[in-house]
Amino acid sequence: MARHTFLLKPRWSDLDAYGHVNNVTWLEYLQEARVDMLFVHAPAEGSQGLAEGVLVVRAEIDYRRPMLLRQEPYPIHLWVSKIGGASFTVSYQIADDTHDGSSLVYGQAKTLLAPTDLATGAPRRITADERAVLAQFLE
Amino acid sequence: MARHTFLLKPRWSDLDAYGHVNNVTWLEYLQEARVDMLFVHAPAEGSQGLAEGVLVVRAEIDYRRPMLLRQEPYPIHLWVSKIGGASFTVSYQIADDTHDGSSLVYGQAKTLLAPTDLATGAPRRITADERAVLAQFLE
Amino acid sequence: MARHTFLLKPRWSDLDAYGHVNNVTWLEYLQEARVDMLFVHAPAEGSQGLAEGVLVVRAEIDYRRPMLLRQEPYPIHLWVSKIGGASFTVSYQIADDTHDGSSLVYGQAKTLLAPTDLATGAPRRITADERAVLAQFLE
Amino acid sequence: MARHTFLLKPRWSDLDAYGHVNNVTWLEYLQEARVDMLFVHAPAEGSQGLAEGVLVVRAEIDYRRPMLLRQEPYPIHLWVSKIGGASFTVSYQIADDTHDGSSLVYGQAKTLLAPTDLATGAPRRITADERAVLAQFLE
Repeated sequence: MARHTFLLKPRWSDLDAYGHVNNVTWLEYLQEARVDMLFVHAPAEGSQGLAEGVLVVRAEIDYRRPMLLRQEPYPIHLWVSKIGGASFTVSYQIADDTHDGSSLVYGQAKTLLAPTDLATGAPRRITADERAVLAQFLE
Repeated sequence: MARHTFLLKPRWSDLDAYGHVNNVTWLEYLQEARVDMLFVHAPAEGSQGLAEGVLVVRAEIDYRRPMLLRQEPYPIHLWVSKIGGASFTVSYQIADDTHDGSSLVYGQAKTLLAPTDLATGAPRRITADERAVLAQFLE
Repeated sequence: MARHTFLLKPRWSDLDAYGHVNNVTWLEYLQEARVDMLFVHAPAEGSQGLAEGVLVVRAEIDYRRPMLLRQEPYPIHLWVSKIGGASFTVSYQIADDTHDGSSLVYGQAKTLLAPTDLATGAPRRITADERAVLAQFLE
Repeated sequence: MARHTFLLKPRWSDLDAYGHVNNVTWLEYLQEARVDMLFVHAPAEGSQGLAEGVLVVRAEIDYRRPMLLRQEPYPIHLWVSKIGGASFTVSYQIADDTHDGSSLVYGQAKTLLAPTDLATGAPRRITADERAVLAQFLE
């Protein structure tokens, strides 16, 4: 129930010399979707800490089929797949819905994220308020 | 013997609002190092196919410590860690050498790469010439 | 009648360390708007040459007030302001409409563009078909 | 005497679908050169204000010939061409030296810059310390 969907319209400048959305830019797309989920659509209370200092600790991406320039935005589906004491995992799927109800999958990804005190660089534990926000996107 | 090192000087524009090289840009750094290894320092003969159509199929990155803006370039060490029939893996470590002979590691990564016929989008097998080029960077 | 409007949604990654859309990214926004006008909304016939090789010869931008991250897209208004024999000028205004009917202007810009034979790098004259396409956006 | 030169090595990711350094990226190159001049090579004393809040008010670029991917960095020459009460102008030329002593010019540009109190967004006057720093690059 918790899946969030972010619609991202590709830019011409996202294309590389192959005419595809460059593989690097995929990670930027995931970042935009995550910012939208955590900072915009999460309830205001309690999520401020998530907005102000969350570092990416690990990222993995599977590229299945190229994204091209098109008018229609790409749907990026994302959800919280794990909440630990001092880190959490966000999972992603970039996929179009097709007429027969199946999905045309472009790729999928996971990022491990750690709340961090940016002034000191020290990782910190997830607060109860933050946990409640993240739990809304848990799947 | 096969490890290649690419020196990458960070740009001010690589920084995000946290003052760190943005996590997305790490993947761009890996791409620059890979282009340098495969297209510039690989022998000219046989590597043209690698230059003209190699898609990233999977990427994984571990971020250990932030990269900041500095005058000294970051050394990106990379090598071919596996050669399959129709794909190969490049591994990376971003690390400074320290005075006592140890390494200060910023992060490490792997990318799985597949030679592709860009006109048709079809994957293709690695040729003998390409295999010879890749083998020089095998570790 | 000829003014074209492109709606551009800012990305988090467009922000620099000041929290503003970076001044470099403004030029990317103009490029996206231009691609939309010339390649997407121009009639298909005759505009192919414009899509395949138009170089930016000169750009000038006036920055009036910072663009920030927001949900609502920024309207980029653009039009062809001059058509010469071998070049044409596109003018831009980034502005919100306000309730009292006036505009809140973020900035304005001009780019001088030259159709070019990309294989040889040689500039070429604007064809009659291209001129007809451009004339639709003339103001 | 005051001209500063910044050597910028192009990245593969700077190229667009035409195989040229994209016109947008030129503005990024100028920004990198300016940061180097003002924040790195300017004397530490007095220049902190220039590092912490200088907005680009106007930019103009003339593109003469395309920059391509190459091993050799592009020399970006820059200097302060005017110092006003609350703004200053930096001029740029991207050019290779050639064997006969002439220059191969890729392009030239100007940016008008205004020190700004970022907390309030208000422009402010250039201090005496800042003026002394800028004067060292005046030509």
